[in-house]
Amino acid sequence: MSRAGISVFGVEGLPEIKHGDPLARLIVKALADHGDVLLDGDVLVVTQKIVSKAEGRVVAIDHNDSEAKRRLAESEAVRVLRRRGDLVITETRHGFICANSGVDLSNVADGYAVLLPLDPDRSARGLRDAIGHLAKVDVGIVISDTFGRAWRRGVTDVAIGTAGIAAVVDLRSTKDHLGRELVATEVCVADEICSAADLVMGKASGVPVALVRGIARDWFRESSVRDEIVRPPDEDLFR
Amino acid sequence: MSRAGISVFGVEGLPEIKHGDPLARLIVKALADHGDVLLDGDVLVVTQKIVSKAEGRVVAIDHNDSEAKRRLAESEAVRVLRRRGDLVITETRHGFICANSGVDLSNVADGYAVLLPLDPDRSARGLRDAIGHLAKVDVGIVISDTFGRAWRRGVTDVAIGTAGIAAVVDLRSTKDHLGRELVATEVCVADEICSAADLVMGKASGVPVALVRGIARDWFRESSVRDEIVRPPDEDLFR
Repeated sequence: MSRAGISVFGVEGLPEIKHGDPLARLIVKALADHGDVLLDGDVLVVTQKIVSKAEGRVVAIDHNDSEAKRRLAESEAVRVLRRRGDLVITETRHGFICANSGVDLSNVADGYAVLLPLDPDRSARGLRDAIGHLAKVDVGIVISDTFGRAWRRGVTDVAIGTAGIAAVVDLRSTKDHLGRELVATEVCVADEICSAADLVMGKASGVPVALVRGIARDWFRESSVRDEIVRPPDEDLFR
Repeated sequence: MSRAGISVFGVEGLPEIKHGDPLARLIVKALADHGDVLLDGDVLVVTQKIVSKAEGRVVAIDHNDSEAKRRLAESEAVRVLRRRGDLVITETRHGFICANSGVDLSNVADGYAVLLPLDPDRSARGLRDAIGHLAKVDVGIVISDTFGRAWRRGVTDVAIGTAGIAAVVDLRSTKDHLGRELVATEVCVADEICSAADLVMGKASGVPVALVRGIARDWFRESSVRDEIVRPPDEDLFR
């Protein structure tokens, strides 16, 4: 295959992350340990769980206590949209609609739960700045989490924070290949990048970071999931 | 980068597709013309529009007649979920929830609209069989379309038909990296593959097929979007 495309690799060899760990430094080291060099225009997709752990967003919880788990999920929500059995679909403080406010009990020590970062866009900016400083490169950062969807079975990875790479790209001012102006084609490239990354990270493999190389250079700019992806309630038909 | 990962390339050089065109043959030819060889385990992502055009799912419509466009969208639906201005969110006969029943006016000649294939899983199986016969390889096929989502701005590409590659992979029987059983982690890999493909196809570039190489070999099996991804109304919280 000789043409330009994108490639996606898992970043292996990261240690178990704990509160206060220098995540940017550990990612750069894991890459270097495998002989990999970051390039300008690379995008690093970092799963929410290790960002939350590094930021100390971990609380004690009895994994067998359904009532405590429900209370914790609701304490992280501004609104409950639906309930079914143990499942609660909530709107988080960030404006994300997801199961259990994103509170996660997998890949965390028994007796603990991981909460979403307080401000994932800020977390992404911090990683971007630190990695840029350490590795002298200009990379995009996307923080990913695993959400369910309305109407479609199966979870996919989506963006909860971005820095340096567009969240949504507006193609409305471009023309289709018959030369007419395209109408309302705003593509959520950050979510698509997270999905691509998930194809190599898997859920059980313990690879919490992926490198995506070959993303269109004109998508690199300041960005924010909160401003670009979160749909305000007044334009949302399904809240 | 020395480790295993996935790579995604656009398949360039396809002609404008019209009713009756041998799509499998044209895709194999476009690859060969660029010196590319299909391998066992490759996945081809084919955009719905060229499948529909090859199958003759094109109807005449006045692009400036909002009322005619609304009637066409509703004629392709079994149910209307929401209306706002010219936008109607419908459930199609296939069970897809999307804007305007997937009726598409972009990248089609003025005066025409493209409808969804009648049975996209069957279309995918047909492409898989024909490409397997022509190129003597065992590939997965995913037919993609561009859908909006509840709660999140921006469209992403998702699967409307699959053949030979899983639509949803059930990781519930695997263990997380702390050795515990994962709960309810069914990943919609077909949607993730479509998102990865869209990163190279773009909306305006006229590249309607992408090749995804490096997908986990144990995801290759018989599959169906209708059976695996479409969420039946009785288990759907948002219909």
